[in-house]
Amino acid sequence: MRSKKLAEEHFRLLKTSDGARAGELNTPHGVVPTPVFLPVGSQATVKTLTPADIRDTGFNMVLANTYHLYLRPGIDVIKRLGGLHRFMAWDGAILTDSGGYQIFSLAPLCRITDDGVTFRSHIDGSEHFIAPELVVQYQEALGADVIMVLDECTAYDYSQQKVKTAMLRTHRWAERCLRVWQQRSQALYAIVQGGMFPELRRQSVACLAEMDFPGYAIGGLSVGEPKEITLAMVDETTSLLPENKPRYLMGVGSPEDIIEGVARGVDIFDSALPTRVARNGALFTSKGRLNIRRASYAKVDKPVDPDCDCYTCRTFSAAYLSHLFRSEELLALRLATLHNLRFINNLVAKIRGTILDGTFSTFRRDFLAGYKTTHEQTRVDQKQRWLKSRGQQG
Amino acid sequence: MRSKKLAEEHFRLLKTSDGARAGELNTPHGVVPTPVFLPVGSQATVKTLTPADIRDTGFNMVLANTYHLYLRPGIDVIKRLGGLHRFMAWDGAILTDSGGYQIFSLAPLCRITDDGVTFRSHIDGSEHFIAPELVVQYQEALGADVIMVLDECTAYDYSQQKVKTAMLRTHRWAERCLRVWQQRSQALYAIVQGGMFPELRRQSVACLAEMDFPGYAIGGLSVGEPKEITLAMVDETTSLLPENKPRYLMGVGSPEDIIEGVARGVDIFDSALPTRVARNGALFTSKGRLNIRRASYAKVDKPVDPDCDCYTCRTFSAAYLSHLFRSEELLALRLATLHNLRFINNLVAKIRGTILDGTFSTFRRDFLAGYKTTHEQTRVDQKQRWLKSRGQQG
Repeated sequence: MRSKKLAEEHFRLLKTSDGARAGELNTPHGVVPTPVFLPVGSQATVKTLTPADIRDTGFNMVLANTYHLYLRPGIDVIKRLGGLHRFMAWDGAILTDSGGYQIFSLAPLCRITDDGVTFRSHIDGSEHFIAPELVVQYQEALGADVIMVLDECTAYDYSQQKVKTAMLRTHRWAERCLRVWQQRSQALYAIVQGGMFPELRRQSVACLAEMDFPGYAIGGLSVGEPKEITLAMVDETTSLLPENKPRYLMGVGSPEDIIEGVARGVDIFDSALPTRVARNGALFTSKGRLNIRRASYAKVDKPVDPDCDCYTCRTFSAAYLSHLFRSEELLALRLATLHNLRFINNLVAKIRGTILDGTFSTFRRDFLAGYKTTHEQTRVDQKQRWLKSRGQQG
Repeated sequence: MRSKKLAEEHFRLLKTSDGARAGELNTPHGVVPTPVFLPVGSQATVKTLTPADIRDTGFNMVLANTYHLYLRPGIDVIKRLGGLHRFMAWDGAILTDSGGYQIFSLAPLCRITDDGVTFRSHIDGSEHFIAPELVVQYQEALGADVIMVLDECTAYDYSQQKVKTAMLRTHRWAERCLRVWQQRSQALYAIVQGGMFPELRRQSVACLAEMDFPGYAIGGLSVGEPKEITLAMVDETTSLLPENKPRYLMGVGSPEDIIEGVARGVDIFDSALPTRVARNGALFTSKGRLNIRRASYAKVDKPVDPDCDCYTCRTFSAAYLSHLFRSEELLALRLATLHNLRFINNLVAKIRGTILDGTFSTFRRDFLAGYKTTHEQTRVDQKQRWLKSRGQQG
């Protein structure tokens, strides 16, 4: 019952509109309105931005990664420096991912047993062992506001039997995490698994809901599968999750995916996509992504998006941004990041407003009608290329 | 006589103390107190910084480069976008270098005649021709507050005859620049040459002083020669330059060199050194440079320099900055740049204060006694390596 009370304190559902939910997370570092998108700062930094920049783009919660910080600079270093908030000089809320996904996708030579995972560092090849209990202990030492259980992630093409085995282990690990969880001011979220199998997804929700976590994440998606499968799996999951707990769709963050996730009852999103594509020159606009590297922008004496209120669009022409990219100037990466994050922040704020005033369905329809998404095959190809090639981008 | 009146308007000498001068530059974009150091923004951006960052570190004048901007994005593009100030969203003062030095050091296959220089772009190999008149015209189109004549730069190891030939051509080119100079609100500076030969330096000053420019630069130094030769050449030059005109020592900007330059009557400095070494992790402190990449900083729970008031030192521990560098995070480059530029700005402000209150000599002695400079041979080696290796850093 104690965790039930804390859960109520941690999340408040304010309004539901056609399946979409507006609420708020209560954290030791402030109230966070939901739906919310978390900028990714795996290594205790949202790439190119200072804490002041992050606030300026409108965010008050970010994501960091236990796997990355465990390897470098080390959990004990951050603890002795006063915890993660002080280390990165961020006084807003932080969610730390357990690093399960990163271990499976980044570290070479994983060996998984019920005890935990033995893996090699992708940085220096050193061998490490991590267990569910250790992951909670590390995140308690970091001091994030929301912390995650250790889960076993499965790839898109795994067999049902293999996915089921991993899911059952994830459930056992969730229970062990719950048992050692001490710092109850840090909300511990479970992670629903079950791959692309509706039957397994339903089993996973039922089992984890029973354990009564303060929040629930939907893991194992956005790993290279077609978009309609992602959304179908979200549907399976959210329809069964307890209404009074926040739902967090991990690794999802394109504008259209956020809207579709919200329509299915998701409250929290995170993704490196907005910041990663920004560094490649791909910028969000209400009509879709544009690439500022294209020659057609070289002389444009208007902001990238004349409707945008970000620092970049308020200050510079598309021609200047184009010049910075073509000249390989570092400022380009930051200005593009500021723009994309501000776009996502504005989008999420609009979504919340329309949920509260009951017009979300109209907004969703109008936005998606005007927004040209990346062609599905191109998207899947890009994602799979990135999954293969990525080093430490997290 | 017209240029004499403008020169008086452009520069005002306020106080002299043991050879050091405090004054101010009057520009269409504000009054700039001297001595002044100009952060280098060759490609219309001070690497990693926004205009707001530059102001925050205390600067109100920056340097850009005609050669770089001519090649990319093109002078006509910037002109049609409203000029350089608007293009880079910088409302402070700007000095544009003519690009003479960059043509000779960056562009392959230069052919020099009295007419001008034919060179190939270091970006795409395309062939270009530039002449003294064109350089003035380009800088007038860019709209900088201070503009430079085209000069012929010579290397450290050139013979006296070769240096003399180049110097005489530089004088003829200076005269041609002066003749076509239209926008008298943009102050046109001559560049003294003469290599490492005192006799030629004296000839160069005499000839150019006669032409009565609004300001004088000392060119052809800091090109790999030992420091005592640099300073001896500065001595030769400043002692003969007209007192009522600003003196600009090009390409010099380490803390100790700024102090020694000021002691010899220099008013204006520029150098990529503070920003370039910052991106390698070398940070200025009152005791000398430290390298934040060294393992000893990994756990230090204090700012890089506890006495520093820059954003980086006010906000983050040395351990965090060390983490960002070792993790190859882009924010590292910006935080280090902010620190080094703030250090230089504070240093120059202190220098000016001590000139005005007559204590500059004491300050110079105390600072140099406490500041460990880079070992001379290491410095010369680094500089020569950089001169050879640099691509477009300008």
